[in-house]
Amino acid sequence: MLDIAIIGAGPAGLSAAINGVIRNKKVIVFGRNPKSSYLYKAEKVDNYLGLPNISGPGMVEQFIKHAQALGVEFHEGRILEVFSMGDYYTLNVENEFYEAKTVIIATGIPKAKYIPGEKELLGKGVSYCGTCDGPLFRGKTTMVIGEIEEAEEDVNFLQEICSKVYFLPTYKEVKNVHPKVEIIEGTPKEILGDSVVSAVRIDDQEIKVDGVFLIKETIPVTQLIKGLEMEDKTIKVNRRLETNFPGVFAAGDCTGRPYQVTKAVGEGAVAALEAVSYLHRMENKNK
Amino acid sequence: MLDIAIIGAGPAGLSAAINGVIRNKKVIVFGRNPKSSYLYKAEKVDNYLGLPNISGPGMVEQFIKHAQALGVEFHEGRILEVFSMGDYYTLNVENEFYEAKTVIIATGIPKAKYIPGEKELLGKGVSYCGTCDGPLFRGKTTMVIGEIEEAEEDVNFLQEICSKVYFLPTYKEVKNVHPKVEIIEGTPKEILGDSVVSAVRIDDQEIKVDGVFLIKETIPVTQLIKGLEMEDKTIKVNRRLETNFPGVFAAGDCTGRPYQVTKAVGEGAVAALEAVSYLHRMENKNK
Repeated sequence: MLDIAIIGAGPAGLSAAINGVIRNKKVIVFGRNPKSSYLYKAEKVDNYLGLPNISGPGMVEQFIKHAQALGVEFHEGRILEVFSMGDYYTLNVENEFYEAKTVIIATGIPKAKYIPGEKELLGKGVSYCGTCDGPLFRGKTTMVIGEIEEAEEDVNFLQEICSKVYFLPTYKEVKNVHPKVEIIEGTPKEILGDSVVSAVRIDDQEIKVDGVFLIKETIPVTQLIKGLEMEDKTIKVNRRLETNFPGVFAAGDCTGRPYQVTKAVGEGAVAALEAVSYLHRMENKNK
Repeated sequence: MLDIAIIGAGPAGLSAAINGVIRNKKVIVFGRNPKSSYLYKAEKVDNYLGLPNISGPGMVEQFIKHAQALGVEFHEGRILEVFSMGDYYTLNVENEFYEAKTVIIATGIPKAKYIPGEKELLGKGVSYCGTCDGPLFRGKTTMVIGEIEEAEEDVNFLQEICSKVYFLPTYKEVKNVHPKVEIIEGTPKEILGDSVVSAVRIDDQEIKVDGVFLIKETIPVTQLIKGLEMEDKTIKVNRRLETNFPGVFAAGDCTGRPYQVTKAVGEGAVAALEAVSYLHRMENKNK
């Protein structure tokens, strides 16, 4: 069982990780490659004290090097859901399951954009992971709406088992998709269906499907942990970065503005140290 | 008039300063030399993301270099008091006066140790600055209780105008004190006097004096800004680092644990950006 599971490999997640490891805790950072973060695209960052006039990629590389030097363990993969198990948590990482005593959410700028119908039909034909839930749609028609290149893996897997796969990529350049997949363009307007998904409306066109896979950069945190308390569109935390779930902390852009590396790094450290002190309190209670 | 006056030149103060300057605000950092900070004495810091395995002095020097590269202005000197003037603040910096639209308090780990009698007799013979209030004690007997080497300046100045000066240093090595000054040892137990100071009790000994100068590393923040709301011994702030005074923010160790460079740096940045947004709100209001 992990002491601290960290969701997100950006500045907040990495700062939490080094602080957890320094305190001798068993830590894994789950998330996409840190080089996929927004920071990596920044031309110049000048307001992180001690690293003047550094490029975004330079900063990310320095951060990763620091984490690696301390032996931080990474696990690439999207976290689909976090379940509260009483006094610990279980994380579904693309259908691999991990247990952790505490969780630090560091998923970045909150994007609570839903397609109409998405929330209502989640689990009823709407899924956030093709490689996980694909087998439920064997021989059927599915659509993948992909924000990130990783969606292509889901598309190609589904293509093997479904009778027909549509793919609507919303990122720049499609790289490696099976020729049988039908790539479509447009804006997804609504997911239709009464008790289960029946179609997706793309602009003015309705396409009949049995399942829709939304491959997002990050799962909306309110889907990630059901019942997580929000404030506006950000995770509600107090000064100790505690959420409404005991043992679950949040740090960085997901707790709100300002969206700055230095704020994220500071919060990552605070969240980790608060997690450590929570772990010690739990240990003493169980003695 | 300054846009942002920053009190304290540690990691929080410097981080606030670079963020203020980057946003084109007129900023001065008031405080002791950054090399006098605790951080400078740290052998190794390993949990500030991006600067692995760095020494305390190395880190302080890198921070100062960053601030200097951005043109941050420093003013060495202790802030004695901050007065609210309605929509701006006046700072008393050892009897030089500065005006500022916003103030960021970054004075470090709160030390609310008072000598019995200190609070009650402040302004009635007790003072925090010899070079400021010394002239009130011309021809009289005074005592300086000094936490820091800078106290020697106060001592030597008082020696010129007082009939007798006692000096009780609580730091390591006295360097440059006039031979006429009587250096004493011991622990100050109480400042005595009804309406004005009459004596100081050092261990079991009572020494008659007319004035007592307490030269502290930092003035207790509750003395610095009268009416500042505290929580335990730290400054009460919300997630935006606002205090109960509009336009006054606090950042770093003075807002509470964890006492970590990375937390201080993050908070310094947040406080500066909140100050900037406060300044813009004020500007719009005055249009």
